[in-house]
Amino acid sequence: MNKTVKKINFPILAESVWIDGDDIRYIDETHLPHAVKKKSIKCLKDAGVAIGELRIRALGQVFLALNLLIKYINKHPEARKEDLHNNIEQIARYLAEVRPTFPFFDILRPYQTFIQNCSNETDVGKEVKEKIRTDMEKLKAKRIKRAEYVAQLIEDGDSILTHCNTSGDMVIMAEVCRANGKAVSFFVTETRPHLQGARLTAWELNKAGFPVTLISDSAVARVLSKGLVQVAVTGADRCTLNGDIINKVGTYQIALLAKTYKIPFYVMAQSPSNIASGNDIPIEFRSDSELLNYPQKNHYSKKINSLFPCFDVTPASYVNKIINFQGIMNPEEMATVSCGKIL
Amino acid sequence: MNKTVKKINFPILAESVWIDGDDIRYIDETHLPHAVKKKSIKCLKDAGVAIGELRIRALGQVFLALNLLIKYINKHPEARKEDLHNNIEQIARYLAEVRPTFPFFDILRPYQTFIQNCSNETDVGKEVKEKIRTDMEKLKAKRIKRAEYVAQLIEDGDSILTHCNTSGDMVIMAEVCRANGKAVSFFVTETRPHLQGARLTAWELNKAGFPVTLISDSAVARVLSKGLVQVAVTGADRCTLNGDIINKVGTYQIALLAKTYKIPFYVMAQSPSNIASGNDIPIEFRSDSELLNYPQKNHYSKKINSLFPCFDVTPASYVNKIINFQGIMNPEEMATVSCGKIL
Repeated sequence: MNKTVKKINFPILAESVWIDGDDIRYIDETHLPHAVKKKSIKCLKDAGVAIGELRIRALGQVFLALNLLIKYINKHPEARKEDLHNNIEQIARYLAEVRPTFPFFDILRPYQTFIQNCSNETDVGKEVKEKIRTDMEKLKAKRIKRAEYVAQLIEDGDSILTHCNTSGDMVIMAEVCRANGKAVSFFVTETRPHLQGARLTAWELNKAGFPVTLISDSAVARVLSKGLVQVAVTGADRCTLNGDIINKVGTYQIALLAKTYKIPFYVMAQSPSNIASGNDIPIEFRSDSELLNYPQKNHYSKKINSLFPCFDVTPASYVNKIINFQGIMNPEEMATVSCGKIL
Repeated sequence: MNKTVKKINFPILAESVWIDGDDIRYIDETHLPHAVKKKSIKCLKDAGVAIGELRIRALGQVFLALNLLIKYINKHPEARKEDLHNNIEQIARYLAEVRPTFPFFDILRPYQTFIQNCSNETDVGKEVKEKIRTDMEKLKAKRIKRAEYVAQLIEDGDSILTHCNTSGDMVIMAEVCRANGKAVSFFVTETRPHLQGARLTAWELNKAGFPVTLISDSAVARVLSKGLVQVAVTGADRCTLNGDIINKVGTYQIALLAKTYKIPFYVMAQSPSNIASGNDIPIEFRSDSELLNYPQKNHYSKKINSLFPCFDVTPASYVNKIINFQGIMNPEEMATVSCGKIL
């Protein structure tokens, strides 16, 4: 059993969006690792651009959604229950239109319920803000706890394969391993076309002092066949009641290859959406140009199409364990977890 | 049964290296598809640079090796058997040192045997040149024949998944399909880090009028899971007696994923090297910088390692058919084929 870790220095990507006076401020992840650029969001449209261009992604989108609500309350302290309910609906709809795969409704609906049940109509905005602040504080503790669950599954000396970026949660998990005397190292896939694995995960793990080896997305089977990794761990943009995992495209083939090589595939997740299986989740298709422009320069004939499903579905049968805020679970246990609860 | 195709316009990448007076000329594939740049090779060192920097790759390396021998004979018309034997040894050793996975010895050894058996000591150079010219002519016919074999396995309307680049042989195969009234289209993986799939295969297939959809190397499982392709076809840098295939890294995971989705995986190959299995073939590891510099710009911390196995081994059990100059074969038939015969 691992010891509980009291304090972890949260890495920069773990809290990349925050409220600052009248604005929402964020770290534009598209400039990393070259520059840590901070930018402002003044309206919902700015928020749409920020997530549409992947300046804010993954868990940052949770903070964005909640801070948009705080911002609205700050601007409209007199807002009534109905105003707040409608504002939440507007935020969720707008953001989900830009990025249809991310569970914006799951994040925001609990606040609609809270508002509905709130006895105090005049101070409802203040109470919602208070709840968000408390939830964010709790979230921090839950993330450390989840990292501790994952760390229980990791052995001293393990080399961990990961894909894309988990907004600092992989670093937190690695820090827990270190605090428990377990040396870990990482194989990180590039994660084309936006290279979140290379630009973000490799960078943040390395910055925190963990050995990192970058591989192309095509080298996974080769690396597994040579016994270079002992365990695969990814995040999840969402998961469903049957234990299917929806995450950055490429996750599924890693899970499938891991199964072939009998390497456990663990997923750090939130509670499931109230949806039966992964095939019921809309998969965002992103623009041809993001794949065809490599980078800044169009390398290909204009007549070539591209297909860029931004996420894929990893069927439950390829997942060994899902680690969420409740603990270490088997995929089939998802149906028993209270769903749609992100914070 | 398909009809035999009498004439195919060979695509530009199918014959990218040729002799021109005293020099060897070639198309520098690293500039494609933006520019068709022709360059000269004056010495063995130039040849090493050209293959080391991937300006000449795949089948182009066969033409390079043979043209280096022609060039030597042109410069030394008086060369004796022993000189020629030694020159061949020198070429094979030098090139194999630069690119250890490619079968330079398999390509050149038959000419050492030919020289040894040559009755005419004084005109041996001339006879070798004549044999190379004849072999190259025959090779052209064999490539069309092999394309016809592959085309037999393709159905009208098939969408074909491919990886990396086969020096025009995929285009020739598609042309044969078209001549036989079979419409084919392609899904082409990018093939990081040098993007041969995107820059070369997508470009040449598209130029020849075939519909092409480019995908990231990470999207293979997603595309297969959605039923978007009916068959996977790749080339092979070499193959072994047990039917293992050695090709650009990423080939193996495509074969493995294809098997999961019961999609046939076909390989266009030469005769096997006289080597028991793929694990006995040295895999070239290329420089960190090729993966870490994306492109021209180092995106990552200097402390991050990368691992770039340039090729991988696809075990025979994941290969449905190997199509070589002898015809359509099962992997287990490789041991019965005369090995080391490239031309």
